[in-house]
Amino acid sequence: MASQQKQANMLWGGRFTGGLDPLMVAYNESIYFDQVLHKQDILGSIAFARANFHAGILTKEEFDKIDAGLQAVEAEWVAGTFKIVPGVDEDIHTANERRLGELIGKDVAGKLHTGRSRNEQIATDMRMWLRDELRKIEAFLVSFLQVTAQRAATEVDLIMPGYTHLQRAQPIRWSHWMLSYGLAFAADLARLREVIQRVNRSPLGCGALAGNPFGIDRAAMAAELGFDGLLWNSMGGVADRDFVAETLQWGATLMQHISRWAEDLIVYSTAEFGFVRLADAYSTGSSLMPQKKNPDSLELLRGKAGRAFGHMAGFMMTLKGLPSTYNKDLQESVEPMLDHVKTVADSIQIAEGVLATLATQPDKMRAALDPFMLATDLADYLVRKGVPFRETHHISGECVALSEKTGTPMNELTFEQLQSVDARFEKDIAEVFNYDKSVEMRSAQGGTSKASVLEQVAVLKKMLE
Amino acid sequence: MASQQKQANMLWGGRFTGGLDPLMVAYNESIYFDQVLHKQDILGSIAFARANFHAGILTKEEFDKIDAGLQAVEAEWVAGTFKIVPGVDEDIHTANERRLGELIGKDVAGKLHTGRSRNEQIATDMRMWLRDELRKIEAFLVSFLQVTAQRAATEVDLIMPGYTHLQRAQPIRWSHWMLSYGLAFAADLARLREVIQRVNRSPLGCGALAGNPFGIDRAAMAAELGFDGLLWNSMGGVADRDFVAETLQWGATLMQHISRWAEDLIVYSTAEFGFVRLADAYSTGSSLMPQKKNPDSLELLRGKAGRAFGHMAGFMMTLKGLPSTYNKDLQESVEPMLDHVKTVADSIQIAEGVLATLATQPDKMRAALDPFMLATDLADYLVRKGVPFRETHHISGECVALSEKTGTPMNELTFEQLQSVDARFEKDIAEVFNYDKSVEMRSAQGGTSKASVLEQVAVLKKMLE
Amino acid sequence: MASQQKQANMLWGGRFTGGLDPLMVAYNESIYFDQVLHKQDILGSIAFARANFHAGILTKEEFDKIDAGLQAVEAEWVAGTFKIVPGVDEDIHTANERRLGELIGKDVAGKLHTGRSRNEQIATDMRMWLRDELRKIEAFLVSFLQVTAQRAATEVDLIMPGYTHLQRAQPIRWSHWMLSYGLAFAADLARLREVIQRVNRSPLGCGALAGNPFGIDRAAMAAELGFDGLLWNSMGGVADRDFVAETLQWGATLMQHISRWAEDLIVYSTAEFGFVRLADAYSTGSSLMPQKKNPDSLELLRGKAGRAFGHMAGFMMTLKGLPSTYNKDLQESVEPMLDHVKTVADSIQIAEGVLATLATQPDKMRAALDPFMLATDLADYLVRKGVPFRETHHISGECVALSEKTGTPMNELTFEQLQSVDARFEKDIAEVFNYDKSVEMRSAQGGTSKASVLEQVAVLKKMLE
Amino acid sequence: MASQQKQANMLWGGRFTGGLDPLMVAYNESIYFDQVLHKQDILGSIAFARANFHAGILTKEEFDKIDAGLQAVEAEWVAGTFKIVPGVDEDIHTANERRLGELIGKDVAGKLHTGRSRNEQIATDMRMWLRDELRKIEAFLVSFLQVTAQRAATEVDLIMPGYTHLQRAQPIRWSHWMLSYGLAFAADLARLREVIQRVNRSPLGCGALAGNPFGIDRAAMAAELGFDGLLWNSMGGVADRDFVAETLQWGATLMQHISRWAEDLIVYSTAEFGFVRLADAYSTGSSLMPQKKNPDSLELLRGKAGRAFGHMAGFMMTLKGLPSTYNKDLQESVEPMLDHVKTVADSIQIAEGVLATLATQPDKMRAALDPFMLATDLADYLVRKGVPFRETHHISGECVALSEKTGTPMNELTFEQLQSVDARFEKDIAEVFNYDKSVEMRSAQGGTSKASVLEQVAVLKKMLE
Repeated sequence: MASQQKQANMLWGGRFTGGLDPLMVAYNESIYFDQVLHKQDILGSIAFARANFHAGILTKEEFDKIDAGLQAVEAEWVAGTFKIVPGVDEDIHTANERRLGELIGKDVAGKLHTGRSRNEQIATDMRMWLRDELRKIEAFLVSFLQVTAQRAATEVDLIMPGYTHLQRAQPIRWSHWMLSYGLAFAADLARLREVIQRVNRSPLGCGALAGNPFGIDRAAMAAELGFDGLLWNSMGGVADRDFVAETLQWGATLMQHISRWAEDLIVYSTAEFGFVRLADAYSTGSSLMPQKKNPDSLELLRGKAGRAFGHMAGFMMTLKGLPSTYNKDLQESVEPMLDHVKTVADSIQIAEGVLATLATQPDKMRAALDPFMLATDLADYLVRKGVPFRETHHISGECVALSEKTGTPMNELTFEQLQSVDARFEKDIAEVFNYDKSVEMRSAQGGTSKASVLEQVAVLKKMLE
Repeated sequence: MASQQKQANMLWGGRFTGGLDPLMVAYNESIYFDQVLHKQDILGSIAFARANFHAGILTKEEFDKIDAGLQAVEAEWVAGTFKIVPGVDEDIHTANERRLGELIGKDVAGKLHTGRSRNEQIATDMRMWLRDELRKIEAFLVSFLQVTAQRAATEVDLIMPGYTHLQRAQPIRWSHWMLSYGLAFAADLARLREVIQRVNRSPLGCGALAGNPFGIDRAAMAAELGFDGLLWNSMGGVADRDFVAETLQWGATLMQHISRWAEDLIVYSTAEFGFVRLADAYSTGSSLMPQKKNPDSLELLRGKAGRAFGHMAGFMMTLKGLPSTYNKDLQESVEPMLDHVKTVADSIQIAEGVLATLATQPDKMRAALDPFMLATDLADYLVRKGVPFRETHHISGECVALSEKTGTPMNELTFEQLQSVDARFEKDIAEVFNYDKSVEMRSAQGGTSKASVLEQVAVLKKMLE
Repeated sequence: MASQQKQANMLWGGRFTGGLDPLMVAYNESIYFDQVLHKQDILGSIAFARANFHAGILTKEEFDKIDAGLQAVEAEWVAGTFKIVPGVDEDIHTANERRLGELIGKDVAGKLHTGRSRNEQIATDMRMWLRDELRKIEAFLVSFLQVTAQRAATEVDLIMPGYTHLQRAQPIRWSHWMLSYGLAFAADLARLREVIQRVNRSPLGCGALAGNPFGIDRAAMAAELGFDGLLWNSMGGVADRDFVAETLQWGATLMQHISRWAEDLIVYSTAEFGFVRLADAYSTGSSLMPQKKNPDSLELLRGKAGRAFGHMAGFMMTLKGLPSTYNKDLQESVEPMLDHVKTVADSIQIAEGVLATLATQPDKMRAALDPFMLATDLADYLVRKGVPFRETHHISGECVALSEKTGTPMNELTFEQLQSVDARFEKDIAEVFNYDKSVEMRSAQGGTSKASVLEQVAVLKKMLE
Repeated sequence: MASQQKQANMLWGGRFTGGLDPLMVAYNESIYFDQVLHKQDILGSIAFARANFHAGILTKEEFDKIDAGLQAVEAEWVAGTFKIVPGVDEDIHTANERRLGELIGKDVAGKLHTGRSRNEQIATDMRMWLRDELRKIEAFLVSFLQVTAQRAATEVDLIMPGYTHLQRAQPIRWSHWMLSYGLAFAADLARLREVIQRVNRSPLGCGALAGNPFGIDRAAMAAELGFDGLLWNSMGGVADRDFVAETLQWGATLMQHISRWAEDLIVYSTAEFGFVRLADAYSTGSSLMPQKKNPDSLELLRGKAGRAFGHMAGFMMTLKGLPSTYNKDLQESVEPMLDHVKTVADSIQIAEGVLATLATQPDKMRAALDPFMLATDLADYLVRKGVPFRETHHISGECVALSEKTGTPMNELTFEQLQSVDARFEKDIAEVFNYDKSVEMRSAQGGTSKASVLEQVAVLKKMLE
């Protein structure tokens, strides 16, 4: 074998130096991104050492040394003085243990890892970190929804066109639009709280795959580290990255909501619609065209929906068909998680800033209301006179056609013209041509009447608790 | 305008017949796949009519006619006698209403749709259908997990190699392997129950987007149709397809678990591993090679993880950046949902069949155990003598090297040989070379000792309740 | 083993009937979708038999019988009289061979498959089918681009706002917009032609994996079947599905172009923009709102970009990490290929119909031109007077601000007002406020001047050859 | 408006400082990743300035100053002394122009951007950079394939089991396996060369969207910058990111091939298969288990197939449904491109190192050959005696069954036993049980005979030219 390998090397003439391929060293090492987990790694090691002390593996003195030593290492990270040794500190676990040995001596430091595997260690670190970050995201989301609820309550009297298929459909309240997204984001919030529950379970004490042979107290470690419970199978415990995948699915969904919210606002801020104007802080100009004011913030929000989806799709691809327990493929879970959390956290905050500061253009909203948007109300009017809806729908369509043919806005058709379409129109038909009334008619739960909208504000606020 | 259009047509020489493009008709219609929703569509219409009766829109007599008529239409679907009118019945709603009109007359049938939009109708139909299907899937999953729990309890004494990186790592119980997936599937079950909650909310009464103007009692309709609650914003209510997207995410994750479970079993059923043999019912032969017995069932299970992911990725792509409320793009939610539900439901049942009928090969499992797999136990032995783990890990590594160099299995190294590596080895080192003991040592929660594994069986069973 | 299996079965109480799981039979069989390949399967079998005749494996008489028999089977498919035997004809190959045996006797029919594997057979069938379909798609795409080129030439004088960030930027020709997509689709066409080259290579004669042991003439078979060349490694040849994956990538990209094209047209057909009106054939109304005319065709086109992406993403997931040669997972390549080809072929034709029949609204385009869109021309004016661009950009910005502050359209600012901003403005500044001139100024290649646009039409037409 | 906005701000109490949201500034800026394009940005600016000099926009003196100044800026980048001004240098274009102004004065530097937009600039920079990187990747791929061809030629005599469905199928040459991937990678190479053609087209001179108004010579600039041609529509030219998407599709496909190649080698390097051993440089040990030697390099290669797919899926999501021309969403094209190129380039090189240094275990390969793998040869033997294949397939299957029933390896069945199955077996049947002969029989093109395999080596080498 050896000769074959040498021969192959010779044929290759590769990058080897001292039996190592420096590119492979770099390809393999994770320290340059997993160092973000330093605190979690150290807390986990302290909990593990404490449990080994209680299990009789470490003496009190040994544990105290390890505890103090690890806190000193953490202090170096916090102070920015920790020196990574390139080519040696391949990951955060190795780095921390190497440094601990330098500080307290290898004899005691060498006992820290007793019965432990890096497999359980990285899983523990990631779960703790992610749990904490998701709780921050939860707070960002609540804050964004509070702004939504507040604007919805404050601006409840603004009426604008509601669209389906991006065609004018029926008048709605501007707040009704905001709440349509607000409630979608509130569903994201509810699901996030479920995700956190699944993230926050402890793999510590699972060993490399088969479990811990020194009778370690897993529940005590979990409690010390703030976990809500244990992962119940050591093989699954060390290799499960579903908590990452589910987080990425969650974030990709939230970013989809943001992409649609942004799309609406981009359309509404065109010159042609003009319903809203972004604050300058969330717009940019053009290097060529002096008059431009571009909604860059919204476009970035929309675009990053792709990035968030890519994290998820990529990592699911990595997981597919993987043999059970730990495989190095799983190292690919860390970077998407880190970038995803940043992307989502930033995006929620940007969205909040955009919404908090955008200016509505009530005149533009009003001006875009169009009598045709009351065609359903016209049909409903006849329904109330007992005409079957299918017939009223047809009659109203004829009024629309008459209006188009004569070039007369539908609300300016004469009573005679209307009666020529259908004799059942009476004088009170004039009252139908009233956007405010139209909106107030939609008073069933979830509708766009003022009371319905304010009820939704209350529902939303309750979901934030 | 008209003349331009005619000119364009003339230039084009397209497919037009009678002002219609027959390809567009087919591209647009959904009846050939959404007819599966016939029952839900009819129940929804009955509930809607009943609510309109209570709201004073329909008389008792009208409601009774509609009720009876719709039940007659449903009877035709069930009997397979419903005749779809091509080019007319573009979707299930249109088809049912068209047929209702034929059965009870258009005067009354024409009142059914009062204040209602197909936008809310399709959303209602889909949610009811999906809720029911997901409950079936829930039952399939429970059944599969019962088989898992049962085999894990029955076969708890089988010991096999545990792998990390597909390299032999430590001995484990075969049941421990089964439970590693069992608990992942049980997490899928827990999440499924959460998904069903979000699916099972009612959009009925939301209108096209702005709400219902006839004071319909949405809560009463929701109760009649078995929903758990309402969607609280009419714009969101009609256009929300997150319930589909979340289902697809859920199913894609479950199928990933299945792909990994299948991968392991495919490897375990190679000639080289040989730990399990699939029942003939789940294998196939080759058209060319007479000796072949291929694990087709497992390969299909693994392959369909891609299909399930594709549904999800595709539909999320469809949703991205879509303006709010109903857009026709949303029609693309139906087919992936239908195929996904079938893929997932079938796959769980196939997986159950495979697991229930596969034969373990205990002798092969035993034969694959290798003394090197006890190297950690060797290190642990010295840990118990007070040697720091880092040092014991190194000493054990030297024993491995000695074994390789001398060509002597590690458990057949003489006591003298071992002492030459480290003087702290004592006579009782011989007891370390025992796979059963190794397995029993991993007795912390989640480990591979018998008691730990049986505790996991109990945990799993509890999660099925 | 057997007893264990029986016991497991008993525990299970599963679906077994006569040793078979009927659900597994259905899960495994492909006949209900791969029957679409009947012609290719039969042509491939004839070519294979002919080659085996030339190799001395079949007599002339045997070959003639097989040839005639297979043509009779194909005639049944074409006539719609072929009867699939459920549970027996698991795939198209099995079905055709079964039927051949019935028609010409098993003694001769049993020789057809000599040295052949279904692995190479399905790959051959799929490649032939796909090659033919892609050539149809190529023709659809050329036709669509011819309409594009024609309209671009005919309507070259229409001027409309050009947008960046969906904000009004600079005036452009409507044809310039059409050509921006036309050239993207032309790049798709170029790539399609490359894809077809890679699809159209023959795996026939590769056996199950190791090659053909009867000296079959692969090149002759390839020529008979219209292939452009051979796949050069039998293991790769039978299992390669990259031709499907690349087709799906290609189609997903084309559909992305369509999604963006559709998005623009949806925006342009809103009441607020109003630049185009779709023909009625490509629009639909609302079941609730009588006035609605929705661009359903465009929304379906946009939505199906997701479907097409889902095919691709799903199948790439299926392929990832698969062991080499044939695995049953590859069966999952057929259905996405079939649906993808249909989706893409239909969509191109619909897009052509939409474009061929839509009516432009030149007055609306003109009305949306806004003096601010000439701010760059104002800056360019000063550049020509020798002022550095960065300064002219700033000066023009001040004119914009003055216009906004005074509520005077920029082109109505007095000469004195302009001079108050910068003394270098001269009387000829008035000429800048001319949309037609602005457009004609962009005369570098690729620009929006008439000559540049007509040159693009020529470039596009050349790419269709 | 203004007052509303202020009020909203007050309600919000957000992050504003001096009218800016610092998070938005960071969210928007690209300098921290697009600085990698410094050289391309500067070369592009020089070419643009030269063209503007020829067009009469700049004097010779001005051009010379700009040229020298830009080269000085580039020298700072190369020396690592360029100082990014946070919050000012939002992207590489702004940074370079800002610095140029400091070096040569704003009067001249302010003329650089005349008629140019950052939209065309970033597209130009990205295309130049990507073209250069893809050419490097092309060279890496050629090098990897040279190692493949070389090993395939050198080790052509090694015979091992060929698998389908991961079940032993027929004997093959180890080189045949290597070449099955080699030819797939060679197809990637061919496609890469096509991709480079599409990447390497010039958008410079397209302006912001409408083209260049100063008669710039686009062809001359393209030639200076090494482009193969122009993008022909200015709207498309500035906004087209298909060159990124196609690169990502290409790389995702290549990484899929790598994932499958790695999967095979991971399986082949298990203890159970044992066909190959990785060099130590590409393996790692375990922190817990002293005996472990894990194929981390292969697992990372396999895992990164997900990462590469994620880039592609994410960016396609970003593009979907985007309005035409530049939108800020497109900024999301840069980071995936950078990381993708690095991932792919590194992975090819690692794969080359792995292959160049792995040691084959010929004894293990031989030992895994199993007489059942000759069952097809047994059937072929009878075919040569004139028995129809379907019958010989059945007879061979009976021999397999007899072997299994009697526990006698198939090649040790007595002549009498074979004759009891079928009388047509003659004495020369013994010659069938010869793996070398079996392999040599597959001599049709693409087969596993020595000549066929060496022909493939030649084909592969030719594809590298």
